[in-house]
Amino acid sequence: MFPHKSALMSMLTGALIFTVSGAFADPLPSWNDTDAKSRIISFVETVTDPASPDYVTPADRIATFDNDGTLWAEQPLYFQLIFAVEDVARRAKDDPSFASTDALKAAAARDYEAALALGKTGLLEILAASHANMSLDQFNEAVAIWLDTARHPKTGRSYDEMVYQPMLELLRYLRDEDFSTYIVSGGGIQFMRVFAEDVYGIPPQQIVGSSTTSTYEVIDGVPTIMKGADLFFNDDKEGKPVGIMHHIGKRPIFAGGNSDGDFQMLEFTTSGEGPSFALYVHHTDAEREWAYDREGHIGVLNRGLDESEERGWLVIDMATDWGTIFPATSQ
Amino acid sequence: MFPHKSALMSMLTGALIFTVSGAFADPLPSWNDTDAKSRIISFVETVTDPASPDYVTPADRIATFDNDGTLWAEQPLYFQLIFAVEDVARRAKDDPSFASTDALKAAAARDYEAALALGKTGLLEILAASHANMSLDQFNEAVAIWLDTARHPKTGRSYDEMVYQPMLELLRYLRDEDFSTYIVSGGGIQFMRVFAEDVYGIPPQQIVGSSTTSTYEVIDGVPTIMKGADLFFNDDKEGKPVGIMHHIGKRPIFAGGNSDGDFQMLEFTTSGEGPSFALYVHHTDAEREWAYDREGHIGVLNRGLDESEERGWLVIDMATDWGTIFPATSQ
Repeated sequence: MFPHKSALMSMLTGALIFTVSGAFADPLPSWNDTDAKSRIISFVETVTDPASPDYVTPADRIATFDNDGTLWAEQPLYFQLIFAVEDVARRAKDDPSFASTDALKAAAARDYEAALALGKTGLLEILAASHANMSLDQFNEAVAIWLDTARHPKTGRSYDEMVYQPMLELLRYLRDEDFSTYIVSGGGIQFMRVFAEDVYGIPPQQIVGSSTTSTYEVIDGVPTIMKGADLFFNDDKEGKPVGIMHHIGKRPIFAGGNSDGDFQMLEFTTSGEGPSFALYVHHTDAEREWAYDREGHIGVLNRGLDESEERGWLVIDMATDWGTIFPATSQ
Repeated sequence: MFPHKSALMSMLTGALIFTVSGAFADPLPSWNDTDAKSRIISFVETVTDPASPDYVTPADRIATFDNDGTLWAEQPLYFQLIFAVEDVARRAKDDPSFASTDALKAAAARDYEAALALGKTGLLEILAASHANMSLDQFNEAVAIWLDTARHPKTGRSYDEMVYQPMLELLRYLRDEDFSTYIVSGGGIQFMRVFAEDVYGIPPQQIVGSSTTSTYEVIDGVPTIMKGADLFFNDDKEGKPVGIMHHIGKRPIFAGGNSDGDFQMLEFTTSGEGPSFALYVHHTDAEREWAYDREGHIGVLNRGLDESEERGWLVIDMATDWGTIFPATSQ
């Protein structure tokens, strides 16, 4: 009935060796040995140490991360916008009548400049054509096709390989230390769910994002969630703390972002009574990634740069703090 | 460095005894030995048996439950409405000018008939006064005060002791079998979060409910979530599958409700490709609880009664299937 005693001893010894090697293993191997890395590890060790006055119970170890520019890249355009254009092009190939407006025609031709030149109305047409008036299952399938087939114009990688290796390690490290990791992004909640579990290890129920209204209909006897075109929730800026308290119902103790759209999430996270940690990913590496902050259309970071030091928020300098940017590709 | 071997053996023996007694223990002791109980246990045993063709991986063991009339009682009025009236009365006691309209005056006097006679406008005034234009922290405190002080007019219990013991056991049984248990209720998402973790063992991030819009504001330097009065999401009927796919992002395999407001959640749950289970709590016990179904203002159950049999949904007869209704009180 019982395992043999020597087998028991061997199991125990194995467990001890595993524990010891775990304690000495570097949880963030792609991070250079700079202040950034040591500040993160120091915070995690403090809040997980039952003897520390700043100990935080696992149920309250909530960590929230922006996605675009924080967990994966966002240049030359938000990837979800690239998906929208590519998806219109794919549909128009099957059915040329699908490209029924100037904006959709530009998208069908993958003419980003022409599409963007049409302004907000054109953009909304392209987003609606690729995101609305279809079932959630159809949408999920379209995103999966895009991830399988599309390649980033600069790196040739699939878009879900344009993720930051140091952040993958940080997510895993936090989970290993009994944090719950969430995405809180201005991107689409259903869009991210298609890849977030495989790529980040973050399951669907831990994704908070923007969304359009959706409806429940029984179509030809099949209960179906239909995606609509009207905005339901804008998970950006002030919307991020609102989305957090709506979905999670608890204030995070750890938050990461890369733009002023994340400012309020970091502010809210660091205004609780207990210990907390906030970080900005600062895009400083034109060679290995992109360098941008105060100007442009994407990932603008002004207030965050101005106030991080006085607020005690970590600003990660990608060029010096990260030894690797992207993971080894699957090819 | 190692525990003494006999201590080890004793630990192991203890673990084995615990496991064995667990295997034979009745997971649903407050349920009578009827078909209802055996159908539930049979389903759970099947989907958790790795050798079964109907095995479901723990990550997909999502169970969703309505709250009012399913996990706790809902007579003579939805408890959240009773909270609203009692809260207006409490505030008006501190500040008589608070009861500034006929509806609020009726609520301040705890005159439910007069308050309800004023119709939807009056009801919305009472709900707004008790739920809106205050911070989330203030609201949470008001709900906690109500739970501490208010007593049910029929039973004299606090409202969070008006929960169904058999359902508490079902929630625990499902979690013990690696299900994730969620509330998906027409009630207020923040209202339920105040007590759901203590009472049901369901944490804030596993509550889906109705809500009003809220905003994020920095007030006197303090980041604050403010509750507004406009409807944001109505988590009832067709809204339940929509809420599920918004918050959880996965179709449940187990769902429980008690009214036609839950029909679509049960329909959606049982229309997936794999095994699934749906149940209705049928209020048939006028002596120990209340008896109601097809008529009235609360918990109306028509379509559910008409279609459950053909759909293979379990209808729980409270009077015969449940040995106990409410848990022993803490007094």
